[in-house]
Amino acid sequence: MKVTFEELNRFLQDQFPQGAAYGSLQKLGDGWAEMTLDVDDGHLRPGGTVSGPVMMGLADVTVYAALLSKIGLVPLAVTTNLNINFLRKPQAHTPIRAKATMLKVGRTMGVGEVFVYSEGVDEPVAHSTMTYSIPPEKYQN
Amino acid sequence: MKVTFEELNRFLQDQFPQGAAYGSLQKLGDGWAEMTLDVDDGHLRPGGTVSGPVMMGLADVTVYAALLSKIGLVPLAVTTNLNINFLRKPQAHTPIRAKATMLKVGRTMGVGEVFVYSEGVDEPVAHSTMTYSIPPEKYQN
Amino acid sequence: MKVTFEELNRFLQDQFPQGAAYGSLQKLGDGWAEMTLDVDDGHLRPGGTVSGPVMMGLADVTVYAALLSKIGLVPLAVTTNLNINFLRKPQAHTPIRAKATMLKVGRTMGVGEVFVYSEGVDEPVAHSTMTYSIPPEKYQN
Amino acid sequence: MKVTFEELNRFLQDQFPQGAAYGSLQKLGDGWAEMTLDVDDGHLRPGGTVSGPVMMGLADVTVYAALLSKIGLVPLAVTTNLNINFLRKPQAHTPIRAKATMLKVGRTMGVGEVFVYSEGVDEPVAHSTMTYSIPPEKYQN
Repeated sequence: MKVTFEELNRFLQDQFPQGAAYGSLQKLGDGWAEMTLDVDDGHLRPGGTVSGPVMMGLADVTVYAALLSKIGLVPLAVTTNLNINFLRKPQAHTPIRAKATMLKVGRTMGVGEVFVYSEGVDEPVAHSTMTYSIPPEKYQN
Repeated sequence: MKVTFEELNRFLQDQFPQGAAYGSLQKLGDGWAEMTLDVDDGHLRPGGTVSGPVMMGLADVTVYAALLSKIGLVPLAVTTNLNINFLRKPQAHTPIRAKATMLKVGRTMGVGEVFVYSEGVDEPVAHSTMTYSIPPEKYQN
Repeated sequence: MKVTFEELNRFLQDQFPQGAAYGSLQKLGDGWAEMTLDVDDGHLRPGGTVSGPVMMGLADVTVYAALLSKIGLVPLAVTTNLNINFLRKPQAHTPIRAKATMLKVGRTMGVGEVFVYSEGVDEPVAHSTMTYSIPPEKYQN
Repeated sequence: MKVTFEELNRFLQDQFPQGAAYGSLQKLGDGWAEMTLDVDDGHLRPGGTVSGPVMMGLADVTVYAALLSKIGLVPLAVTTNLNINFLRKPQAHTPIRAKATMLKVGRTMGVGEVFVYSEGVDEPVAHSTMTYSIPPEKYQN
């Protein structure tokens, strides 16, 4: 692991100055990460269910965390491709949890997969794979 | 066209009660739609550039609008798959615009593609294709 | 499991009359399947490495097998969406193996994920998720 | 345009030694290409309709041609991501045609989109977007 839980948590808070609206880091390992997001009214579609873009946002930042666990704190790593399948309707008024694992981390690209769940429910509500572009070292922070 | 611009605009406002945070309908045609989103601090990554999930959100609702122009006001149509390629860095502090066209609208599924732009710049910042599931008529509104 | 290994194997052979060019069923479980494909000259790009479309073909039929293990022998189930990430260069002149698992099987759609490997190498050469459309019962075989 | 129609045609034939099984180059422009593929028994699913993987293969090589029109004859450019939506059933016993356009060509990556048709039918049977990785110049043949 290239960063500690605390270092990454602080880094994410700096990267996303609008508070914890992007999610909270829960666990971090070598090439994997888990984050949760409390769902509030701004995240919901009618019926109280969390919207697709909110789930995509949590999936995205969780893969980012998993990527950084491998390459260190690189702020200029950006998503180049994201594919997501929405599998089941999320539970209303329930936090969402994302678990991401890197499938490959190369010199210029990282590919990760992430499962999104309604907290406390076994079957995933969404599954996504995405590619992050890793900038050349001379451009890293 | 199954709905007028005004009908769809009102419908979207009801669907997204948190104001115009999802985007503003600009144009509507038979199977296509254009929407814009003013970018504010909550949408930005460090450096002032609009985030991926915000672009995905605008892309998603613009395809939804294009779909509804074909099938009418169906609130239970939901995204089942979304794929997006981020092509170029968006301009900082600039609204984003999405133009969506339906590639196919069937009985149970609609597939659309959408280009996302920084307002005033020709080259797209992102391109996405997505699939919406259309619920059986007995479940419509 | 809705079919036995032998039933599915025979069914696939009928579906793909050009012999075992699509792959060989190796293992079958409830919602998962494994298939391999021997690589010959027709499958190769210069350098002896198996081509992308050949890997996509094996991924596709392996998810099909995993799907049928859940829903039975439905010939009209077709792929509606496929997303694939090519992660590593396959080994030259080496068979490829695919392991597919269904993420969700509903009434009208099934979503599966599949890892593709060069036989004998731990790290996957590709990863794919895809959606199959399941025709209404009155249209099944 | 970085290559002529004849140069690219010859190059593709060298790259794919098994004859014209990959498709025939029909038109080439600056950042776009069109190819067709005659469909024979080996390409078909029961019912005489061309299979998904065959359409993916034609889509893939047509984007490759469009990419090379921009960057020249680079044999080591490889597909890293491909997403495809199958929209309509192809016509039985009918050639397929693919039209690809590059959405962006950068230094390390190119993203293209491609429509696939049954020859003579207006509505596309499939639509795909894909990313090609462009190797550093020192690795280019």
